[in-house]
Amino acid sequence: MADNDISRAELDEIYAFAIQLGKDAGRMLMAAAQARMGDAGSSIQKAHVQKMNAVDLVTETDEDVEAYIKSQITARYPAHQFVGEESYSKGSSRDYLIDDAPTWCVDPLDGTVNYIHLFPMFCVSIAFIHRSKPLIGVIYAPFLNQFFAACQGRGAWFNDSQALPLVRNPVPPMPEKAPAGCVFSCEWGKDRKDAPDGNMARKVESFVNMAAELGGRQGRGGMVHGVRSLGSATLDLAYVAMGSFDIWWEGGCWEWDVAAGIAILLEAGGLVTTADPPHPNEDTAPIEEVRLGSRLYLAIRPAGDSPTETGRQSQERTVREVWKRVRNLDYNRPGA
Amino acid sequence: MADNDISRAELDEIYAFAIQLGKDAGRMLMAAAQARMGDAGSSIQKAHVQKMNAVDLVTETDEDVEAYIKSQITARYPAHQFVGEESYSKGSSRDYLIDDAPTWCVDPLDGTVNYIHLFPMFCVSIAFIHRSKPLIGVIYAPFLNQFFAACQGRGAWFNDSQALPLVRNPVPPMPEKAPAGCVFSCEWGKDRKDAPDGNMARKVESFVNMAAELGGRQGRGGMVHGVRSLGSATLDLAYVAMGSFDIWWEGGCWEWDVAAGIAILLEAGGLVTTADPPHPNEDTAPIEEVRLGSRLYLAIRPAGDSPTETGRQSQERTVREVWKRVRNLDYNRPGA
Repeated sequence: MADNDISRAELDEIYAFAIQLGKDAGRMLMAAAQARMGDAGSSIQKAHVQKMNAVDLVTETDEDVEAYIKSQITARYPAHQFVGEESYSKGSSRDYLIDDAPTWCVDPLDGTVNYIHLFPMFCVSIAFIHRSKPLIGVIYAPFLNQFFAACQGRGAWFNDSQALPLVRNPVPPMPEKAPAGCVFSCEWGKDRKDAPDGNMARKVESFVNMAAELGGRQGRGGMVHGVRSLGSATLDLAYVAMGSFDIWWEGGCWEWDVAAGIAILLEAGGLVTTADPPHPNEDTAPIEEVRLGSRLYLAIRPAGDSPTETGRQSQERTVREVWKRVRNLDYNRPGA
Repeated sequence: MADNDISRAELDEIYAFAIQLGKDAGRMLMAAAQARMGDAGSSIQKAHVQKMNAVDLVTETDEDVEAYIKSQITARYPAHQFVGEESYSKGSSRDYLIDDAPTWCVDPLDGTVNYIHLFPMFCVSIAFIHRSKPLIGVIYAPFLNQFFAACQGRGAWFNDSQALPLVRNPVPPMPEKAPAGCVFSCEWGKDRKDAPDGNMARKVESFVNMAAELGGRQGRGGMVHGVRSLGSATLDLAYVAMGSFDIWWEGGCWEWDVAAGIAILLEAGGLVTTADPPHPNEDTAPIEEVRLGSRLYLAIRPAGDSPTETGRQSQERTVREVWKRVRNLDYNRPGA
């Protein structure tokens, strides 16, 4: 076995370690949240620090939990690399840093705004990546009591015992007229610059195309079944793996926001590619595998075969129909 | 005691009955959802029926649960009136039907689209109304294990023992620059007509105003902390009562979508008024009490006093700041 090979047994052991780590870290998040509720609140309320702007708050808890996760990983797997949201954000580089080495990619607290406001959609997200592929993903949303985990070759799981996607015998194909009939998940994000053709304007134009009645918007109307925004890219992906969201389209988040979710979604049978539409070749351009550091993501839920299409074909058809309705976003990045 | 008076003891008894009814109905919803998951799925999957359009699906479960709730209420309180989402929708009238008599207003399944896709944000919503005031509200989201309940004079509660709002000693005032710093909850809804100045266009314009950077949008930019869309008006209101969402602005939903949530939010200390801005008198127009059948709602979370303002003053200030950023929506309705 070459130095950077990982055996099945070793991967399973890393998976068990990651599951325990995710549960412990999630409990830390919840304990700190509970300390802010009710009578115990004022005395131990955490101070918040401001980063870029008012939308981009980071809590002390965030840093504490990342330090805990990093120390546990370093103690157990000293040779592995570590990329965490908090430590990365404090660094000066915005380059994509993940290479072929075994790497942990961690968001100690995804849905920070939700967490600050105690809206339950927050979670810890832990991924193990090897040769640039997310092989293990663990997501724990402690206020929801929802735990998601997957390891390549071991299936994707909700709350330890429910296989994902939830509906699975058979897994439904994508709707015939997708995006019509689909639940569309998207995020407004932090980039709120009011520029006529800026990212916010392009996102909103894309959302409206997906939402509008069929035939509307010069034929771009997608008449999705619902538009949802949770404020957590990680949980968006978890719900795509569940099959609850059909389509997630997003630009601007980072590898630690998506690595665990991608591992879980791929193991559940989903498809993840780029949010960036290959105008004007939406019908013919290759559907590339997602690049983890691209900051541009399009995810499609697990889909089963129909009499006329394989599940993969219906996913790819949906990707192309989304591409026809969305704008290119500007999130260039060195190294990705 | 006059015929239509309700004593404290009687109201408490009705509250206990409503709590049990909500828990039982929620368990029915969850049992039917679970039957669609995993191996048990295909054989007992419920048939869906189409109403107005693809976005407006109604499940058999919806009807079964409403029939169950109605039968329980009729058996226990035969003199009370009943307005339920399913039975109303099948009737020919679109008038507002609630008068001063004791009335139950029920949505057996709020978040129907979520339920169809097994996204956990669905719930049962039961309100008891007297003299046109929602006095009791019970909301149960069984897939989230989240239960909300309130009765006038008895406080508002999460999962039976946690008082609402969650942060309460002290309850934080509204942010100084609200809507900046606020989590803004809104819904795309079912009305997706692509008309240049239709409801969808007006909603989206309002959402973008609330989201855009301060100074943007000709001064209308609100730079909210986050924009959230859950697909359940009932749960939106529950999270406003929790204090997790600061502002909910919505047009188009109905009294059974909001009655229980309003009861809970008011008991928690929130403010509910109309979504309809009194242009150009946003700064001076009276802030009227919500009209239950108005289909136009603006809710503000519970807020505590600051050194310079009462909680109520900070809520009213927030109402006026929202009104300056949102459009009037067209949801006229007889009787409301």
